[in-house]
Amino acid sequence: MAPQPVKEHNNEQQGAAPQHVLSIPLEDQPTERGPYSHERWIIGKVLRMAGSPPVAFELWNGERVLPDEHTESQFTIRLTDHKALYQLTANPNLAFGDLYSAGRLHVDGDLPDLLTTLYRSVHQARKAWPRWLEALWRNHAPRPTGLDDAKENIHHHYDLGNEFYQLWLDTEEQQYTCAYFETPDLTLEQAQLAKLEHVCRKLNLQPGQTVVEAGCGWGGLARYMASRYGVKVKAYNISREQVSYARQEAQRRGLDHLVEYVEDDYRNITGQYDAFVSIGMLEHVGAENYPVLANVIKRSLKPHGLALLHSIGRNRPTLTNAWIEKRIFPGAYPPGISEFISICEQGDFSVLDVENLRLHYARTLEHWMQRFETHADDVTRLYDEHFTRAWRMYLAGSIAAFRASSLQLFQVVFTHEDNNQIPQTRRHLYASPAAPEAP
Amino acid sequence: MAPQPVKEHNNEQQGAAPQHVLSIPLEDQPTERGPYSHERWIIGKVLRMAGSPPVAFELWNGERVLPDEHTESQFTIRLTDHKALYQLTANPNLAFGDLYSAGRLHVDGDLPDLLTTLYRSVHQARKAWPRWLEALWRNHAPRPTGLDDAKENIHHHYDLGNEFYQLWLDTEEQQYTCAYFETPDLTLEQAQLAKLEHVCRKLNLQPGQTVVEAGCGWGGLARYMASRYGVKVKAYNISREQVSYARQEAQRRGLDHLVEYVEDDYRNITGQYDAFVSIGMLEHVGAENYPVLANVIKRSLKPHGLALLHSIGRNRPTLTNAWIEKRIFPGAYPPGISEFISICEQGDFSVLDVENLRLHYARTLEHWMQRFETHADDVTRLYDEHFTRAWRMYLAGSIAAFRASSLQLFQVVFTHEDNNQIPQTRRHLYASPAAPEAP
Repeated sequence: MAPQPVKEHNNEQQGAAPQHVLSIPLEDQPTERGPYSHERWIIGKVLRMAGSPPVAFELWNGERVLPDEHTESQFTIRLTDHKALYQLTANPNLAFGDLYSAGRLHVDGDLPDLLTTLYRSVHQARKAWPRWLEALWRNHAPRPTGLDDAKENIHHHYDLGNEFYQLWLDTEEQQYTCAYFETPDLTLEQAQLAKLEHVCRKLNLQPGQTVVEAGCGWGGLARYMASRYGVKVKAYNISREQVSYARQEAQRRGLDHLVEYVEDDYRNITGQYDAFVSIGMLEHVGAENYPVLANVIKRSLKPHGLALLHSIGRNRPTLTNAWIEKRIFPGAYPPGISEFISICEQGDFSVLDVENLRLHYARTLEHWMQRFETHADDVTRLYDEHFTRAWRMYLAGSIAAFRASSLQLFQVVFTHEDNNQIPQTRRHLYASPAAPEAP
Repeated sequence: MAPQPVKEHNNEQQGAAPQHVLSIPLEDQPTERGPYSHERWIIGKVLRMAGSPPVAFELWNGERVLPDEHTESQFTIRLTDHKALYQLTANPNLAFGDLYSAGRLHVDGDLPDLLTTLYRSVHQARKAWPRWLEALWRNHAPRPTGLDDAKENIHHHYDLGNEFYQLWLDTEEQQYTCAYFETPDLTLEQAQLAKLEHVCRKLNLQPGQTVVEAGCGWGGLARYMASRYGVKVKAYNISREQVSYARQEAQRRGLDHLVEYVEDDYRNITGQYDAFVSIGMLEHVGAENYPVLANVIKRSLKPHGLALLHSIGRNRPTLTNAWIEKRIFPGAYPPGISEFISICEQGDFSVLDVENLRLHYARTLEHWMQRFETHADDVTRLYDEHFTRAWRMYLAGSIAAFRASSLQLFQVVFTHEDNNQIPQTRRHLYASPAAPEAP
């Protein structure tokens, strides 16, 4: 299955030019003729606009183009046809992933390394871009994330099938969020459990307390909190497949008296709790809904409760990469740190603790990608080659984005501003290793 | 000496109405006549607008006014004359401190407790204030903090005389910033050294590195870093008295080969360093200068360097209390957390760690106030009774502001966005107690 069809994003409403979501035909014929001289010039110009990274383009006749004669290439990008060249020039953010997925763009060399190099190079180079190029190559605003849209957005990604995710996520709690490598030698399983433990410690959980979780994935955190901390958890998620798995798993482990999974939107959370937690949902909330989210947390958190949001973020507000938003995560928008903090301001909260785990996410993704590659044939059997290549691009691009610092991972702890029963220090987070011993 | 004369703040330039900086005459005669009925009504109304706290006003003839007949008072505020009543009604933010300092307003009951009660009450009540009252009782924008203004502002407070500050600050490193009470039983001396150690650990200092400090007070942090971590420190400060003390102290301790104190503005910092640190200066920088500060840090920090800003802040942007800005800290503006973070965005930095030490500052101030009261007679001998009362009000008001959460204390660690040589976890901050053993 190719990336599933998503309702087309109405760009006019979002103020971006329609050409930024041009669909790339999945297939095109290899070009028989040799490249024209203006084609060589164009692709060389693209490389120079990207900051002249150590990258060569190999055209369909085997001819190589470098940014300039002094550059020694460490990577080669091969194009199978001349249309790919034009598509890449017109809209590289979208076309790179689409052409790669379609097998019309190939990479010689390590894909995450190439993308890290490209991200860094473009990040520097774009400061000198003329306005027309900035306009041509810009990403577009993410699609809406209202109640109905959100369901569709989440279904697109998280309902791909539990079997698929089980191929490459950790086998402990199937965590599809950043792990916590408190020491670099941890296994993925240990690091994911360490993440859950780190979060519980930040929330200062005590037996008998109540917790509400917004966006619970396959329910691992809720089960961890219930079994290790003896708290009652109500966990919300709009992904049907995930909720169904989460319920079965809680029942299987005899935790269903402590954990309740609710198939509903975070906006419909009711009740008051000692802790509010959300791991990896904020990316899908959309900046236009932050005031609503702030209000939900404000009304759901008891006077002395602690809240924790864990989310991919940015050093400053930045549009989501067009290909990721279009093909992988419809509606996704990782907030700039100032937008993240604005949620706390809007809810009359006091920020207690911010931790940036950026490089932990690069490492998590490296683990995922390694396992994904081990099972690449299985993935292709489940879906098809196009899907496998798209997910390879997504995982590699995410590794690169965290390495090159275009993405961050923030954990933010906050509370009602007038709560004076707050932890005095963070020493309790480090009293003992958060990860369990290796089995 | 009464609070020193400061150049009058030109409100028209700042867009605030002149009546908000009305000067309160330092002396007025006790009123002989009894209060008029409208005066009783007015002061009762003031109490109700302040959220009907458990506070009584005792007027000049001994008559008591409560917000309403149901309120039982825990505190009594006594006014000696009818003009005080009008001044308080017209501009309570400014007049409360001025009248108290002038001995025309007295408080029965614990002053920090009264002010905490008032802050909490007003914070809730003001959400329902009509616009005219919000306008009447608003604080004004702080005065400018350009190069020359900054000198005057800093001179006003920090050049009051080292002898004065020695009466009530810690005897170890004369720290006039928030201490770190990693355990509640620490002495002020231990907690101040723990703060210095906590900051050094956050900066991950290694022997032989170089550090630049912006706003170094009496130079304690610079000496601590040099003596405990073997780093070279260049420390900037525009307070002549403080720099002079700092230099003598470094010489006395044989640290002058490692520490250089520069009597100059942070904007004139030159060179590149492994760490940039600033403890308690950001409050005086002024929001209009944050882009400049961001740029100074950006150009002064080596590619793998870490920066730390430690400052009083707010949960959201809020104007400085008129009395504090006018009488105590001219030009002061503690940033909202979003404004604080904006410095990192403006400098292309990546935020690594934010810690809120709010209640540590309340405790620090309690220690200071206790010592201040022990030496109140000495302070009055150095200056006069008006000064002593003004500082009592300032210390008590600061305790109340941190307890009531209208002030926060943020430590923010950040680095160039492309620096991948960052600490993986914060465990090293907690590997051993930051405070030294009690002597």
